[in-house]
Amino acid sequence: MSDLLARANAAIEESSPALFSALSPLGRQLVYPPGIPFQAGQARGKKYNATIGQLTDGAGHALRLPSLEAAYAALDEEKRNKALLYSPAAGIPEVRQAWRQRQRAHLEPGASASSLPIVTVGLTHGLSILADLFCAQGSAVAVVEPFWGNYRQTFGVRRGAEILASPAYVDDGEGPRFAADGVARSLGALPEGEPALVVVNLPSNPSGYSLTLAQRDQLRKALVEAAALRPIVAICDDAYAGFVYEEEIPRGSMFWELAGQHPNLIPVKVEGATKELGFFGGRVGFLTFPFAADSAIAEALESKIMDLSRATIGSPVSASQMVVLGALESRTLEEEVEALRQRLAGRYRILRDRLATFDPALGRALPFNSGCFALIELARGLDSEAVRQRLLADHDTGLISIAPNYIRIAHCSVRGEALPELVDRLERGASEVAVAVS
Amino acid sequence: MSDLLARANAAIEESSPALFSALSPLGRQLVYPPGIPFQAGQARGKKYNATIGQLTDGAGHALRLPSLEAAYAALDEEKRNKALLYSPAAGIPEVRQAWRQRQRAHLEPGASASSLPIVTVGLTHGLSILADLFCAQGSAVAVVEPFWGNYRQTFGVRRGAEILASPAYVDDGEGPRFAADGVARSLGALPEGEPALVVVNLPSNPSGYSLTLAQRDQLRKALVEAAALRPIVAICDDAYAGFVYEEEIPRGSMFWELAGQHPNLIPVKVEGATKELGFFGGRVGFLTFPFAADSAIAEALESKIMDLSRATIGSPVSASQMVVLGALESRTLEEEVEALRQRLAGRYRILRDRLATFDPALGRALPFNSGCFALIELARGLDSEAVRQRLLADHDTGLISIAPNYIRIAHCSVRGEALPELVDRLERGASEVAVAVS
Repeated sequence: MSDLLARANAAIEESSPALFSALSPLGRQLVYPPGIPFQAGQARGKKYNATIGQLTDGAGHALRLPSLEAAYAALDEEKRNKALLYSPAAGIPEVRQAWRQRQRAHLEPGASASSLPIVTVGLTHGLSILADLFCAQGSAVAVVEPFWGNYRQTFGVRRGAEILASPAYVDDGEGPRFAADGVARSLGALPEGEPALVVVNLPSNPSGYSLTLAQRDQLRKALVEAAALRPIVAICDDAYAGFVYEEEIPRGSMFWELAGQHPNLIPVKVEGATKELGFFGGRVGFLTFPFAADSAIAEALESKIMDLSRATIGSPVSASQMVVLGALESRTLEEEVEALRQRLAGRYRILRDRLATFDPALGRALPFNSGCFALIELARGLDSEAVRQRLLADHDTGLISIAPNYIRIAHCSVRGEALPELVDRLERGASEVAVAVS
Repeated sequence: MSDLLARANAAIEESSPALFSALSPLGRQLVYPPGIPFQAGQARGKKYNATIGQLTDGAGHALRLPSLEAAYAALDEEKRNKALLYSPAAGIPEVRQAWRQRQRAHLEPGASASSLPIVTVGLTHGLSILADLFCAQGSAVAVVEPFWGNYRQTFGVRRGAEILASPAYVDDGEGPRFAADGVARSLGALPEGEPALVVVNLPSNPSGYSLTLAQRDQLRKALVEAAALRPIVAICDDAYAGFVYEEEIPRGSMFWELAGQHPNLIPVKVEGATKELGFFGGRVGFLTFPFAADSAIAEALESKIMDLSRATIGSPVSASQMVVLGALESRTLEEEVEALRQRLAGRYRILRDRLATFDPALGRALPFNSGCFALIELARGLDSEAVRQRLLADHDTGLISIAPNYIRIAHCSVRGEALPELVDRLERGASEVAVAVS
């Protein structure tokens, strides 16, 4: 049991032994982890704050899509009324249809069938629904490491699943490269026939990486091969969909490439307006299965998920759905999304260029090309939490530490011009910690 | 296993045996129940539709509090920015403070301490958090019957708790009366020392009843007595707080009366802007414990709940919180809430007067005085589902059936003038079913 957890439990037991004795086994395991929001809280007010994956101007102001903001400010009477009233448990039909159109707008003819997206309370709610549907005590969930810490909460803490972590990056002596098929190969240790979940998070958090065309093919083949041995639910966590900054990197979701490849391989698309439309506070996400919208299996899955939504959050957020619908109806939305991508691409290039000269004695930037983040692997023996604390204390700078030796930079919430100085400070803080430990 | 569930599972298994084999035990138990939203869906478009507990004008238009609508339409720049960005996991501090002020505005000096309310995704999310914290397989949850069907989803289906139902109404030959202490007495069958949850839902759903002063005292004493034998978490489900229509009925939450009464009796306040501010689609609820806002136990509980929220929904809805904050800052809000209460009281009186002459051969109205509903107990042998189907098919009328012989009328979403005709139709439909079965 962590210290934090022991302290929380003791605080309850001391003040109310009765309440402590009424806690469920799950209740006794819960404590807010010192993860990203916790660390972001500590970084509030720092001059250089690259802790959190929101799209901002670097001074705490949301980067807004004009169509979303316009929809927010001026819902028409009909939308306003719907915004105030309950949503159906699976989401408002027009919103589901409009999102589906956007999903399929650029697909080739003959692309896989897909179900009508089910609306969730942000993307995490979609993940937690999949955890409820497919995880019990001991279920395997394969992810690459380092991974977004909240997977541990959603699959591990709340549902008792085992996280099967495989290294995100390997190095055969030619520098680090993304291990495209790591998640598939890590399943080999499981007994044959045992179902497993695999998380395919591209662009990735915390490492800001998207696969090349060849790597996508490698991952697809590896998953198909693994599916010969067991049912695999492949969770395509498309939180950062579209935010890709190198020309040769494909931007589409792996969902479409994994659908229909093997009867044992079932991809599920998890996504949201959160990042894609810059509506972090709205909590509108979507869950999509590779089954035709009117098929019996799509309806059965929808019925199960509506039951869960009803039991957990009552119904999804109408108010935010109507704003998203307003944005989706705007003819200029996709241009605005592209302009936002360009803006982030500018920051990305500044950071990429600065990290190219990162002091190799202190660490190295892992390959990145997309999303909201860059990941620094500190040199052996340099503890990333010590570096983070040093940056907070002495350098007016907030970054995220991921054990044992990773530092995440969220370039999405820092002005481009500030990024070189931020990396300078990271180097300074890291070298001070290095001196102290040597 | 219900037919509906068997059919949903079969649909999945037939189309994708792999996906079916990957379903968790919970996943296999889920199917959207034929409860209130399901029945409301069937009633859509009916001329008389009293199925759902939303506050409307009877033609599908939300009854709006002007301050809420104004806040919705015209958030200032700062609020708009916060609305777009992530909320802290426990809610936006200003919203929590403002709700707390409202909670405590009319308390006597010396009222119980209370924690800073934690923001949830509507009221159901608060219940589901309590289910996670305090329920495991077989945990006892005492409620009066008939109860809001969603308790079964939240506590039973999702967490495996046992619903301990005791009759809401008893009749000693002088007509039905609310069994004020039923939930406390039903705990007697549990082994001594075993913790239990008790739901105190006033005004009640589906029966629209609030306790008299004497009955509140009776319930409080019964719970204190029961707490001598076991820890009791008393969930004060205050969804319909304030909507009380008879002068002599107290309007405050039982939370304040149960707090501090016995170390083994811990009330938790669950409430929301959903009904109280008429913001059904916003999904803003609150959870409050009877511990001082800055106490170690309040902080430990908050940490646990933040962990759960992060694992389940990521963070609560900023967009809706900022609208609620705007409404709470309005000086006229409480007058508007009172005007809304008066408007509903008008409907209540029309319905109460009409039900006073309900044909006793067909059933009787159970005592009601508050909330959004009235409950009809049909005469013995009259199946409420058959009556509901008849009303849908032949009388252009939608009501909610609750097994075996209850019909719920949601007067909150029907024009007052329409209520007598609606009851006429209920009588007609019921008498037709009675003839058919006799």
